[in-house]
Amino acid sequence: MEPQRRPGGRSARVREAVLDATAAELAEHGYPGLTVEAVAQRAGVHKTTVYRRWRGPEGLVADALDRASEQSWPIPDTGSLRGDLRALTELLRTGFTDPESGSVATAFVAAGMQHPDAAAALRAFYAARHREAAVLVERAVARGELAPVPDPVEIIRFALAPVFHRLFVTHEPVTAADARRAADAAVTVATAARD
Amino acid sequence: MEPQRRPGGRSARVREAVLDATAAELAEHGYPGLTVEAVAQRAGVHKTTVYRRWRGPEGLVADALDRASEQSWPIPDTGSLRGDLRALTELLRTGFTDPESGSVATAFVAAGMQHPDAAAALRAFYAARHREAAVLVERAVARGELAPVPDPVEIIRFALAPVFHRLFVTHEPVTAADARRAADAAVTVATAARD
Repeated sequence: MEPQRRPGGRSARVREAVLDATAAELAEHGYPGLTVEAVAQRAGVHKTTVYRRWRGPEGLVADALDRASEQSWPIPDTGSLRGDLRALTELLRTGFTDPESGSVATAFVAAGMQHPDAAAALRAFYAARHREAAVLVERAVARGELAPVPDPVEIIRFALAPVFHRLFVTHEPVTAADARRAADAAVTVATAARD
Repeated sequence: MEPQRRPGGRSARVREAVLDATAAELAEHGYPGLTVEAVAQRAGVHKTTVYRRWRGPEGLVADALDRASEQSWPIPDTGSLRGDLRALTELLRTGFTDPESGSVATAFVAAGMQHPDAAAALRAFYAARHREAAVLVERAVARGELAPVPDPVEIIRFALAPVFHRLFVTHEPVTAADARRAADAAVTVATAARD
């Protein structure tokens, strides 16, 4: 029996290879060093294939972020809002400071500051992530741990923002205690909020 | 009588001209487009002068941030912590979204993601700004409006972080209501904190 053809077939395999190569190149050289030639060579495809489908580095980054949007964040389920938000901010912290995954994730954020297409892709990416993570707040409300809050996504933003602020604006170190404090502050805000 | 020579004299005037030119070039072309040649030409100095003293774009950005550190943020004094923090986050929001000042400020933040020297300069810049702004929290404590908090700077970070997060990570719009909500959340955290 023939192996069933996946949706997209060869085209989908080319996309996987090209976007994997994009991530690897970003990790090594950052956004300013991302070239279609290097991505094509690493992916083992002709550079005209890459130019035709992705146009340039900004198209590659935008599609790599689109692909990342299709994957989910692991959403913690510790039984309490505090535990869940602490797990979430710690995942964010370690994700960006991990020597392997961190440089790709950092390159995505940097790309957003350098090209409007990447910024638009990041906006869609984080909107999807925030909606997913808002379930932590909704679960706490459903458990009766928390009164209904007007905007669950805003609680997620408050938890994550201080970690991102240290990483990408003030360039301060981010310790596990910093990540925990950000989560705890968001719990305080959620508890004080009234629908 | 001879006019008194200011400290640095010609050297200080050259620095002013070169750093003004750096800011103007950053506003027009961003960090990736910043060149010693263009800065020297705009400042009306020879490019070897710029190379000798600042070495390259990263040295120019670091010194421009050093100069910015010497100037103070306007620190609001509205009579209440909520009023002060709301004024502070609104200043931040409008400072980055203003068509004139915003592009230079944005270019500084972007530079921090692209070069370690710029990142170190931003870290020192924001450390100075946070210390200055922490006086808002200390004044609220002195007025008896707020119980002493363990770390006044952390309250400033909580107020500013959600604005920066929207501006430079998620690339969402930042409305006056968003800035106000960030300030109010920081007040909630400050009120709940116990020394």
